[in-house]
Amino acid sequence: MDRYLVINSDGHAGLPPERYRDYLDPQYREEFDRQHAARMSALAQAGERLEMAQQSADWAKDKQYGLAGAWDSDRRNEVLDADGVAAEILYVDGLTERNSPPFGGDLGLLPMGADPELQWAGARSHNRWLSEFVSLAPERRYGLALVLPFWGVDEAVKEIHWGRENGLRGIMLPHLWGDEDPYHHPKYDPIWAACQDQDMVVHYHVGAAPMKDYFGAAIFGTQPGGEPPVELPGGLGIFVTECAWWMARPLVFMIWGGVFERHPGLKAVVSEGTSIWVPELLSLMDQRYSDHHFTAKLGSGYTAHIPLKPSEYFNRNVRIGSSCMPRREAEMAHEIGVQNIMWGTDYPHPEGTWPHTRKLMVETFHDMPEDEIGAMLGGNAVDFYGLDVEKLNPIAERIGPERGWFRKEGA
Amino acid sequence: MDRYLVINSDGHAGLPPERYRDYLDPQYREEFDRQHAARMSALAQAGERLEMAQQSADWAKDKQYGLAGAWDSDRRNEVLDADGVAAEILYVDGLTERNSPPFGGDLGLLPMGADPELQWAGARSHNRWLSEFVSLAPERRYGLALVLPFWGVDEAVKEIHWGRENGLRGIMLPHLWGDEDPYHHPKYDPIWAACQDQDMVVHYHVGAAPMKDYFGAAIFGTQPGGEPPVELPGGLGIFVTECAWWMARPLVFMIWGGVFERHPGLKAVVSEGTSIWVPELLSLMDQRYSDHHFTAKLGSGYTAHIPLKPSEYFNRNVRIGSSCMPRREAEMAHEIGVQNIMWGTDYPHPEGTWPHTRKLMVETFHDMPEDEIGAMLGGNAVDFYGLDVEKLNPIAERIGPERGWFRKEGA
Repeated sequence: MDRYLVINSDGHAGLPPERYRDYLDPQYREEFDRQHAARMSALAQAGERLEMAQQSADWAKDKQYGLAGAWDSDRRNEVLDADGVAAEILYVDGLTERNSPPFGGDLGLLPMGADPELQWAGARSHNRWLSEFVSLAPERRYGLALVLPFWGVDEAVKEIHWGRENGLRGIMLPHLWGDEDPYHHPKYDPIWAACQDQDMVVHYHVGAAPMKDYFGAAIFGTQPGGEPPVELPGGLGIFVTECAWWMARPLVFMIWGGVFERHPGLKAVVSEGTSIWVPELLSLMDQRYSDHHFTAKLGSGYTAHIPLKPSEYFNRNVRIGSSCMPRREAEMAHEIGVQNIMWGTDYPHPEGTWPHTRKLMVETFHDMPEDEIGAMLGGNAVDFYGLDVEKLNPIAERIGPERGWFRKEGA
Repeated sequence: MDRYLVINSDGHAGLPPERYRDYLDPQYREEFDRQHAARMSALAQAGERLEMAQQSADWAKDKQYGLAGAWDSDRRNEVLDADGVAAEILYVDGLTERNSPPFGGDLGLLPMGADPELQWAGARSHNRWLSEFVSLAPERRYGLALVLPFWGVDEAVKEIHWGRENGLRGIMLPHLWGDEDPYHHPKYDPIWAACQDQDMVVHYHVGAAPMKDYFGAAIFGTQPGGEPPVELPGGLGIFVTECAWWMARPLVFMIWGGVFERHPGLKAVVSEGTSIWVPELLSLMDQRYSDHHFTAKLGSGYTAHIPLKPSEYFNRNVRIGSSCMPRREAEMAHEIGVQNIMWGTDYPHPEGTWPHTRKLMVETFHDMPEDEIGAMLGGNAVDFYGLDVEKLNPIAERIGPERGWFRKEGA
């Protein structure tokens, strides 16, 4: 084949917010109506206050046709064809972060302040819709069910089974846990076991972080007592410095907690948090695993339950969704592990590659070895997720980027 | 001089806990008596339960003479002479983490759950004692006052002035803030201004981290409702993976918040959190500062208040206390910045270099260029803190490690 088979490891899909009403269990629709107007009004106010929101709105103005691919099946296939993408992993949060399922069933899935019953209702409304959306082009869509681990492990396990039975192929979990138990707690073992048995890959997606730390009450709310808001300088810079760390944190807990030792077939992905931190994190964890001068006082037993080095679990069980991957990360690929990197577009988010995906992928990978380009653009995802190349190759032959584009003469 | 002038950037000093009573303001002594027995009993119980505490106790058994240098002035000078150390920076937490000032005035200075008035009383009891301890050998002792920024900025500023007037030369601040405002909040500007004006260097020391996340209720407490404790596997591994990140976090907030832009003479040090994370953090922050594709949607104004790149503030205003520095860090020195590294012993903690300091410093630095060894062992600290070499050189000439030891034939 003279075209690459490309898999987008980071696609987002979702309805405009008002349309989730129909996918809610009926008993939650009244509460939806009560909360919806206030939520839209708060979003609109934030949109007026935040330069960030205005930038997104400006960017979206002339892109409404393509952005409807967030929920319109035919439109999405058109966009994918134009991007050269054969198939994709589908996270929640369809349109430029302004439309999400209700009740905290969104990209953050934050437990802090959530009503467990309502959050489950919101998450399930998305899972139901996504199951329908995937069924319209199942060979191109690998949908992720939203799963809430903190409100009872049994219910989470049930949703994993429901997802698998309804055409979804992985789950997304929150990567912040607030005051709940982190992911090294053995009580989550039934979740990991269900994911391993059902071949459902666990995903964490960048975004959630302690926003109050960064922005205080100045940007996203008002001060207590109605005092005039204080604008905290640097909040956005701190957020973009720390966001990948928060996203990768569950992996640290799972590796040290022995989750991948007890569930050797469990697969996990972290997405859109870059991959430049990988060599340093693995080197640090391996050093902590083996450096007995520093850790002698910690006792001898703290690595007994994980016979492999942390990096060995990472390389075996974890992959990285590298969205909007810059040239710099491609050049670091051997340090990061070529086999660990899965390229992504982040479509339809404004920081993503769309609508310039083909141009940007060539900028990232030009003049690299063809087998490495192929692995990062799609082969690694095919192997890790076990995608059906028989079905995908004909699509790639039709719309995939030509190998020649990535050579000097073609770039 | 054929010997190196060595400065320990990470010394710990403090009284056995019961002796802090005399340094408390009298109105807090009754409360001290009320809490002291319970605190000692909890420590003893933890000591029986924790392999970590037992290791420390075993290590300390045959070292009581030297360990008394935590509070005994002559004994400390003997230890320093034997270690080849001319002078040192003095943090709290004198003896193997088992003795600390009362009421949360300890190495963590955690705001969570603290009583502000009592915590200040505990911190001040240490500052008073330390002021006396420093006065017994002022040319060799650079003492750090404990300062609590969260219970009122004015009171914190007063303590900075008190410290300076009483022979202390820097401050230590907590690096976890719980629900309090982080360090990019402009309300802390009077603290930074006072430190800049009084030439008091700000310090953060590794150690505090969200222990409940790592250990749950299994190790350091009991389950609510008296349920049998669940032991969370991997807690120690997670702690040693994350602890440097928590320690360095205030720098991220200060740099992005423009603290070093508004206070160009302010100096800050992070200690005992290794230095291997420095190149990656600076590279990430600089990329986030300049990468406008990723951050376009965040708006254009978020770097306007910091005209320099994050790494430029770091290299100008920050130094790293590299305690028990392994060979690997010395080999990375050019990546980290040779001028940024200040070697340390962590005496008298069990993970430190004492009583094998001379041997370990040769293992770390052998066969490196003499000017770089000299900078990391002491020269950088002399420059950054403005130490008095006229007074220190005669000490180094008497007890400093000989240059020849670090050459191949001498090692």
